[in-house]
Amino acid sequence: MDKQEISRYFKGLQDQICTALAKADGANKNFETDLWQRQEGGGGCTRTFTNGAVLEKGGVAFSEVFGTLHPNMAASLGVADGASFFATGVSIVLHPLNPMVPIIHMNVRYFELDNGLYWFGGGIDLSPHYVNDNDAQWFHGQLKTICDTYDANFYNKFKTWADDYFYLPHRNETRGIGGIFFDQLNEKSTSFNKQQLFSFVKAVGEAFAPIYAYFMKNHKDDSYTDAHKNWQYIRRGRYVEFNLLHDRGTKFGLESHGRTESILLSMPPQAQWQYMHQPALGTAEYLTLAKLVKGTNWLSTT
Amino acid sequence: MDKQEISRYFKGLQDQICTALAKADGANKNFETDLWQRQEGGGGCTRTFTNGAVLEKGGVAFSEVFGTLHPNMAASLGVADGASFFATGVSIVLHPLNPMVPIIHMNVRYFELDNGLYWFGGGIDLSPHYVNDNDAQWFHGQLKTICDTYDANFYNKFKTWADDYFYLPHRNETRGIGGIFFDQLNEKSTSFNKQQLFSFVKAVGEAFAPIYAYFMKNHKDDSYTDAHKNWQYIRRGRYVEFNLLHDRGTKFGLESHGRTESILLSMPPQAQWQYMHQPALGTAEYLTLAKLVKGTNWLSTT
Repeated sequence: MDKQEISRYFKGLQDQICTALAKADGANKNFETDLWQRQEGGGGCTRTFTNGAVLEKGGVAFSEVFGTLHPNMAASLGVADGASFFATGVSIVLHPLNPMVPIIHMNVRYFELDNGLYWFGGGIDLSPHYVNDNDAQWFHGQLKTICDTYDANFYNKFKTWADDYFYLPHRNETRGIGGIFFDQLNEKSTSFNKQQLFSFVKAVGEAFAPIYAYFMKNHKDDSYTDAHKNWQYIRRGRYVEFNLLHDRGTKFGLESHGRTESILLSMPPQAQWQYMHQPALGTAEYLTLAKLVKGTNWLSTT
Repeated sequence: MDKQEISRYFKGLQDQICTALAKADGANKNFETDLWQRQEGGGGCTRTFTNGAVLEKGGVAFSEVFGTLHPNMAASLGVADGASFFATGVSIVLHPLNPMVPIIHMNVRYFELDNGLYWFGGGIDLSPHYVNDNDAQWFHGQLKTICDTYDANFYNKFKTWADDYFYLPHRNETRGIGGIFFDQLNEKSTSFNKQQLFSFVKAVGEAFAPIYAYFMKNHKDDSYTDAHKNWQYIRRGRYVEFNLLHDRGTKFGLESHGRTESILLSMPPQAQWQYMHQPALGTAEYLTLAKLVKGTNWLSTT
């Protein structure tokens, strides 16, 4: 398959996910659509959902961009200045209204250079405001099942990659309970050919909507208090810290003059920072913080 | 004067500013105090003020840290690995409750290496949620007066430096109306000796409290609506973007394992992000955005 086929697939995946999420939200509204062009080549379609019944703010962004590689990136890839690239993908962040529903992030992407080098990347990770062991076990179980269909080592490898990537060193906290994260997958880095890797990436992309619909359905009617909302705002603050300080997609997007509003779609509708906020010993907030550590085997916490 | 004298002065300045701000706030409460130690050498005193009558969240941080320079920084300064440094300063960010009162930031700092190289840095800049030309003129006038006492070129030079520094390229917006920003001032970069430069830095530090007390007094009782608060939260979101994406002090602090809660004291109590938020033509919010451009001569806008 060529890059156009991959790009077309991603565009279709975006629509399929938006339809499924709008249905799961149940507010009888649809995603809004913004088409945009990139001056240097390509463009995208940003779809947003605001003030639904379950989703307070969500974005499902598709892009297909191409042109000349930024000199810094050419240097880091060890290719000549002036090399052409093509990149396409779908990127999602959803911030729910109810603090008992987790924040979720998903990305699938494809990148190629004019010298024939290509790779796939992506992943799904969950940032619950309150960590629930059963949910975490179910979530990681879903991801493991997808991975195991392809390679018995994928889940452990990509789960560890997510633990290492979605980490805030200045807080000594993981962003959430992780999930899977993978990058630069191609014939050289795996035992699969391009068609097989594309199939794996499709499986990840198509698993996203059912996984999040499960959390929406199970927790949208959970009761909560102002104290729970307050904690949600603080956790959203951590989400902001990760995305602006560490997220490579955000940094790359802003540095390469991407579309700011599409890149910062990942920002929460509202966030808070309180100096020295520390949950009281034994509270649900305290227990959640204690679980935000690298290396947890979520498949066997219950 | 030696580094200890400068550090003692900064510690005293911190207390003097906290006393003046608490008085101007008028809620009959004092700044809280947290003393902390840095494992690698030195420590600090972080003073915070929360939910006052005028100040919703404010921090006045003093630190005096020393030890071995981080290899990256040694390389960027062109000194040998293993060089010792000493750094001391006061850093302030204040987020007011009333959106008609501006956010303010101030920093004065001193840095020296064991090879005798030293410099002073600092500045004061203002981020109004709503730009008021008279206030901007008064503010820049105050800064110009301080600068002119020392060097007829200081104001223009440091004002331009602030314009360039407090800028969000991905928004094509300045953070606010700027002010003055200066760094690496010493005998080599100016026509002044160390004593004179210290005197200039003192003048900047001592001007801070009266300047901000002026804005607190003049605007704390201004009326405002929910729409004004909403805009304040959006502007606070921009403040977060600048500090996490661009502010060198924040980046340096977090990378050098500084005290996270003291570094992120600059974060607002609450912030918002709305996709594609654009103020309607001719509104106060629209006019403010139109004024957040580099190179404005605030001394002659009225």
